[in-house]
Amino acid sequence: MALVVQKYGGSSVSDAHSIKRVAKRIAATKRAGNDVVVVVSAMGDTTDELLDLAGQITPLPPQRELDILLTSGERISMSLLAMAITNLGVKAKSFTGQQAGLMTDAVHGRARLVDVVPHRIRETVEKGQVAIVAGFQGVSSTNDVTTLGRGGSDTTAVALAAGLDADVCEIYTDVDGVFTADPRIVPSARKIDRVTYEEMLELAASGAKVLALRAVEYARRYDVPVHVRSSFSSTTGTLVTGTHGDAIDPNAPAAEEETQMEAPIISGVAHDRSEAKITVVGVPDKPGTAARIFEVVAGTGANIDMIVQNVSAAHTGLTDISFTLPHADSPSTLAALNALQEELGFASLQYDDQIGKLSLVGAGMKSHPGVSARLFGALRDAGINIEMISTSEIRISVVTREDALDDAVRAIHTAFDLDSADGEAVVYAGSGR
Amino acid sequence: MALVVQKYGGSSVSDAHSIKRVAKRIAATKRAGNDVVVVVSAMGDTTDELLDLAGQITPLPPQRELDILLTSGERISMSLLAMAITNLGVKAKSFTGQQAGLMTDAVHGRARLVDVVPHRIRETVEKGQVAIVAGFQGVSSTNDVTTLGRGGSDTTAVALAAGLDADVCEIYTDVDGVFTADPRIVPSARKIDRVTYEEMLELAASGAKVLALRAVEYARRYDVPVHVRSSFSSTTGTLVTGTHGDAIDPNAPAAEEETQMEAPIISGVAHDRSEAKITVVGVPDKPGTAARIFEVVAGTGANIDMIVQNVSAAHTGLTDISFTLPHADSPSTLAALNALQEELGFASLQYDDQIGKLSLVGAGMKSHPGVSARLFGALRDAGINIEMISTSEIRISVVTREDALDDAVRAIHTAFDLDSADGEAVVYAGSGR
Repeated sequence: MALVVQKYGGSSVSDAHSIKRVAKRIAATKRAGNDVVVVVSAMGDTTDELLDLAGQITPLPPQRELDILLTSGERISMSLLAMAITNLGVKAKSFTGQQAGLMTDAVHGRARLVDVVPHRIRETVEKGQVAIVAGFQGVSSTNDVTTLGRGGSDTTAVALAAGLDADVCEIYTDVDGVFTADPRIVPSARKIDRVTYEEMLELAASGAKVLALRAVEYARRYDVPVHVRSSFSSTTGTLVTGTHGDAIDPNAPAAEEETQMEAPIISGVAHDRSEAKITVVGVPDKPGTAARIFEVVAGTGANIDMIVQNVSAAHTGLTDISFTLPHADSPSTLAALNALQEELGFASLQYDDQIGKLSLVGAGMKSHPGVSARLFGALRDAGINIEMISTSEIRISVVTREDALDDAVRAIHTAFDLDSADGEAVVYAGSGR
Repeated sequence: MALVVQKYGGSSVSDAHSIKRVAKRIAATKRAGNDVVVVVSAMGDTTDELLDLAGQITPLPPQRELDILLTSGERISMSLLAMAITNLGVKAKSFTGQQAGLMTDAVHGRARLVDVVPHRIRETVEKGQVAIVAGFQGVSSTNDVTTLGRGGSDTTAVALAAGLDADVCEIYTDVDGVFTADPRIVPSARKIDRVTYEEMLELAASGAKVLALRAVEYARRYDVPVHVRSSFSSTTGTLVTGTHGDAIDPNAPAAEEETQMEAPIISGVAHDRSEAKITVVGVPDKPGTAARIFEVVAGTGANIDMIVQNVSAAHTGLTDISFTLPHADSPSTLAALNALQEELGFASLQYDDQIGKLSLVGAGMKSHPGVSARLFGALRDAGINIEMISTSEIRISVVTREDALDDAVRAIHTAFDLDSADGEAVVYAGSGR
């Protein structure tokens, strides 16, 4: 008998009909002999509707009150789901974040978990009942309601799975799992059967939206096996664990194993259109200048991604520094740099919001120079110019023109033999959240 | 500086616009130098919409889950109200029933308060902030969310006023106060300036809907002054307290006081169309028969109101027993009695759902036989037949044909000089809840 934590997002519980459908799946999991704990998000557009109501009241709602408002959404979905499961003859009870023991700090709107004390959830499960837990929410040490921010329900699910020592945390979404690329761009993209936490972190950080970055971090820290799968089918999805295991190609002949042992294992190609590039032009190439620039940038709270500094031109002693950051962080960053132009001594600022980022993620990349060579070659053959490059142990990212991004993703997907063998189109229902 | 508890019902916070209007009134009360605690119901039709959602899931939702579902309504209204008040420059925080310390038993759907521990509310008020509390909800000793049932928000407000030792509990509604009769039936009905707990209890029990019976009971027990008033005007409403005080006619000359001291003080005429009458015909007139009949009725949980037993006909030794009860309780009661017809030995059952009940409420009635004589005389003059009579210390109720009820209310209202002196029409916006 396994203990399974299942998380259903808002699109899986958008109305009474879909709540009943999800309830059937939960009841079936329970009847198959498992203990089941369910984490649920607010129904469909509830959160947006509540935000709209708040917007009608004030443009600047206090974050504490916004948290109380938004958490009513899960209260509705979780009680309805418990009713639907009970109606199928399986006992179920719903619990708020506070009741489930999800203790957080007091930073409303983006609270961090500080402890998970799921006594009541454990008791409920031990009684043979299904426990439904509100996603996205917790309670502070002062008994105030908090929310975990973006991707919060994924984090709730993984944290509960860790706290309950569950056998697996299933993240149900509207796609079949994690893909080698976005199937809307690469129709031949394949579902990835198995991926490590580290690779999933890089994929999530590089634009893959199917699983929240924070939940992956949590799963990695507590070694929680995560299964990303579709709530619309019973297909096996993508298993995220500490190692690749032997699941990549279970049918491969044993002889091949040895040769593959040290080969790089490419997980997939992620892309991201949410960033812009700022270039600080004509920076005096002397110690401390770059440090001072990034102090200023950090002071605005901007989330810097890639940084590139050109080799300085010997005859001028000046260099250019470029970095990427989310579009939303750009105005405040440009303003902060402009205000200190004299002090920093640079010539000018350039702003470019027409960039795209492509990331190739996989194990063993760094030790295989052939990987970057093949990537650069494929882009050259496709006539795509590379504007920035950044690498990690298991990722190579390049910045291209935004309108060349789709072609770049397809070229790299093909170059690394990621296209599905039989060329069949993969069913893809939209981007998961 | 006074501590004021204000309660706003769903019709006062039906949309963003009305929430902002209510916020202005609260901010003004605060700026006038008062400490303010606000109890708020769910917005307009929220509760009905949530019940409808539950109905789409299952015809028999578990009551515990229904409580979690319904309490999301106050979570929305209270956080929006706190935002609106904050937006006016007055600090405000909202609190759930659990956070406000409203401890109840575990009877979901109609929990009773067992303790009120409003530490956080007191702290908030002491910091000079407005505390907004969710009406209708509490928490059980097992940390489960409960609801207080019908009129629950009124009860929350009175209980908090008692627990905080507030100077007054203001119940805001969409009418100007408690009236001498329903102004939709008696256009000349007057607003009652002051009424005692006992009279208000009788009025509420006799069909006046402006204040929940249970809240009045609570106010009486803890001696909380309750001010029923309109959220659409700043007019003084009806003050419900332990005595009539001297507020009935503050302008009356002192000489009149003595002569009025012992005179009956008529508060008003209430009416009720929600009851039906069951007559048990041909009951053997021997000891224990009536007791057995009402044991059977009590076993169904029916809420018996008036009981009348005819004098038995000497030649038959048989009598008839009639009683009134809510329409909704009738089917089960009729079935229970029918099943025991042989044992109880009665001849037949009669059911009549075309009755109306009129109640005249006021102090000093019992000791003034002239009151009932005037009442019966007025009905006779209006050609209205009386079918049942029941009296208490401060109430006389009569049952009439339902279609004669409005005429009866008007006749009694006039006979007891309750019509407003200047005959002006009273503005009446509907029945309060």
